Amino acid sequence: MYNFEFHNPTRIVFGKDRFKELNRLVPDQAKVLILYGGGSVKQFGTLDKVRQALGDRRLVEFGGIEPNPRYSTLMRAVEVVRDEGIDFLLAVGGGSVMDGTKFIALAANYEGNAEDLLTSRPKPAQAPTAHPIGTVVTLPATGSEMNSGGVISHRGGKFVFFSPLVYPRFSILDPTLTFTLPPTQVANGVIDTFIHTVEQYVTVPAEARFQDRTAEGILRTLIEIGPTTVANPTDYDARANLMWCATNGLNGLIGVGVPQDWTTHMIGHELTALFGIDHAKTLAILQPAVWTVRREQKRAKLLQYAERVWDLREGAEDARIDEAIARTRSFFEALGVATRLQAYGVTADRLDEIVRALEEHGMTALGEKREVTPEVSRRILEEAL
Amino acid sequence: MYNFEFHNPTRIVFGKDRFKELNRLVPDQAKVLILYGGGSVKQFGTLDKVRQALGDRRLVEFGGIEPNPRYSTLMRAVEVVRDEGIDFLLAVGGGSVMDGTKFIALAANYEGNAEDLLTSRPKPAQAPTAHPIGTVVTLPATGSEMNSGGVISHRGGKFVFFSPLVYPRFSILDPTLTFTLPPTQVANGVIDTFIHTVEQYVTVPAEARFQDRTAEGILRTLIEIGPTTVANPTDYDARANLMWCATNGLNGLIGVGVPQDWTTHMIGHELTALFGIDHAKTLAILQPAVWTVRREQKRAKLLQYAERVWDLREGAEDARIDEAIARTRSFFEALGVATRLQAYGVTADRLDEIVRALEEHGMTALGEKREVTPEVSRRILEEAL
Repeated sequence: MYNFEFHNPTRIVFGKDRFKELNRLVPDQAKVLILYGGGSVKQFGTLDKVRQALGDRRLVEFGGIEPNPRYSTLMRAVEVVRDEGIDFLLAVGGGSVMDGTKFIALAANYEGNAEDLLTSRPKPAQAPTAHPIGTVVTLPATGSEMNSGGVISHRGGKFVFFSPLVYPRFSILDPTLTFTLPPTQVANGVIDTFIHTVEQYVTVPAEARFQDRTAEGILRTLIEIGPTTVANPTDYDARANLMWCATNGLNGLIGVGVPQDWTTHMIGHELTALFGIDHAKTLAILQPAVWTVRREQKRAKLLQYAERVWDLREGAEDARIDEAIARTRSFFEALGVATRLQAYGVTADRLDEIVRALEEHGMTALGEKREVTPEVSRRILEEAL
Repeated sequence: MYNFEFHNPTRIVFGKDRFKELNRLVPDQAKVLILYGGGSVKQFGTLDKVRQALGDRRLVEFGGIEPNPRYSTLMRAVEVVRDEGIDFLLAVGGGSVMDGTKFIALAANYEGNAEDLLTSRPKPAQAPTAHPIGTVVTLPATGSEMNSGGVISHRGGKFVFFSPLVYPRFSILDPTLTFTLPPTQVANGVIDTFIHTVEQYVTVPAEARFQDRTAEGILRTLIEIGPTTVANPTDYDARANLMWCATNGLNGLIGVGVPQDWTTHMIGHELTALFGIDHAKTLAILQPAVWTVRREQKRAKLLQYAERVWDLREGAEDARIDEAIARTRSFFEALGVATRLQAYGVTADRLDEIVRALEEHGMTALGEKREVTPEVSRRILEEAL
């Protein structure tokens, strides 16, 4: 096990109707900016419930944070925070709204050009403090509700940032608030959680047994409840299990003390930026291809994954790995998500453009051992066609 | 899954030689009370290393916190905290030192009779604040390094208390600091962690799949590395895995949203108080007996435990349960820990006394459904003879 530091101060408030506790969780005197995305939180009444629960606090609202939230949109919210003297940010939505809110919390306290903050780890001098954040999660997927990172779109790229200042003070996880999600978004959430987990697990052995077993537990749970929760959105238990797995898939728990990959995510970001493919769908396309191309480097962990997640214990090693990859692909397809680039209209003649974008964004040494050069990324993309 | 709240603000600093970071972790201006138990932290140089790492801060020491720490001992430390104007408590030791330090942190801030705090959840008015705590863990077992509870001995009984004020600010987990432990204490740590886990897992089904899988991961890890880490104390990986499992076994992670039992612990506390049997050994004695007596109530989870922890999938249900209980007992025995009361000199004529102590301490409705009456406890004890 590698040395590590783990500190996650977010308070999770989990269960049916817990949004009623906003009154206890948000400071009494706070002037609150409620941030949200499209109209669904209005349409299904979530926003009304939140407003009501906040009692007589002064409230301001900022809607329209888009999927893959854009720097320009978020900077308009920063102006609102400053102009209105906001003291507390309440994100009501999924990963995009939460990620965007984190960026706003930092940028509102930064004197210089906020583009400086689009580095992976802003220096304390750049963002010496941040507005406190709370979240009401409406889409179980990104884990943003219990971590310190976010992804922002800007100038045709996606930028990842982390800061310990943006851990939410609290996150309300009410599975019933997610019952109205369209099936495609739920399927995306299952896949997003699955890939977060394997990016921290299917790497190279590191004698971190608790982390491995916990990752395997998340994967097995997703395989068990994924199809159910897509097909039966109001099955509380299935949705609750998805929701808690999504949070634990990216709150640091399975990622401490182990190597991490993130190749799939980094190439996936380019596919979203260039072609507008949903984040989770880019992951479903790329993950089987990453494993096929990097089978030798990941052999030991792929065999462990085959055995402990898919119960594949018999036969030759390569056959077990092939079967594990095939079952993973089938699992994604069964959720209604196509796993080939061509299904999204991306053909071989576009690969140059994707590889060039990776190079432009400095993504030239990806993977747990920094071995994924642009040449390897190209092979992965070819495999994913 | 039941509704739950999860908030664990402790910072974990894990790995070899991390005690050097005490200088970063303890506030610069703090006057620090270093608390420890017997002589082993002196003998093996841990105390010297800690002092050195704290630089030129003002230090006071309080040693002699015994196993099953006593109220009277801890109240002497409270006087030191008050007389010396201490601002920070640094526990260097195992569960007893950490639990004792938590109690001191509360009691030093309580105006009335500190015995009032020996309730399971002190009221905020009783302990409105607490001294900040850090820990340097020398014995992986109790999980006290990342939770808000403690157990204190007083007037012939053991008292459990919890307060969110006593989460350590940080805990340093350096597996190498535990290499000098005697094998019996390491075996106790393995068993303590195992029983913490099953008390939160072998109950009744609650559709909490992440929690179940994570608990199973801890149990399987302990089975894998337990005998190794007892036999080869300097095997870093084995000890690191024990240490991280011990923390995660009782930091809330596997216990949120699920029923919990704690029968074994509560009867075990009486065995320690009456006969001086090591805490972990009381658990090893009682757990097989609890499962044997409460097999019907726990049938579904015992079968799940048999299947997922011991790979017992074939044969009649009762045969699988019997085998799982037998393997659990063999696992404890293979660690060098006897699992029958009589091996510790406790015979049938002492059972009345134990049951009476349970009644006197209000332990008359134990278990995940409060079904363990004194009569059931007696049957468990008879089974454990």
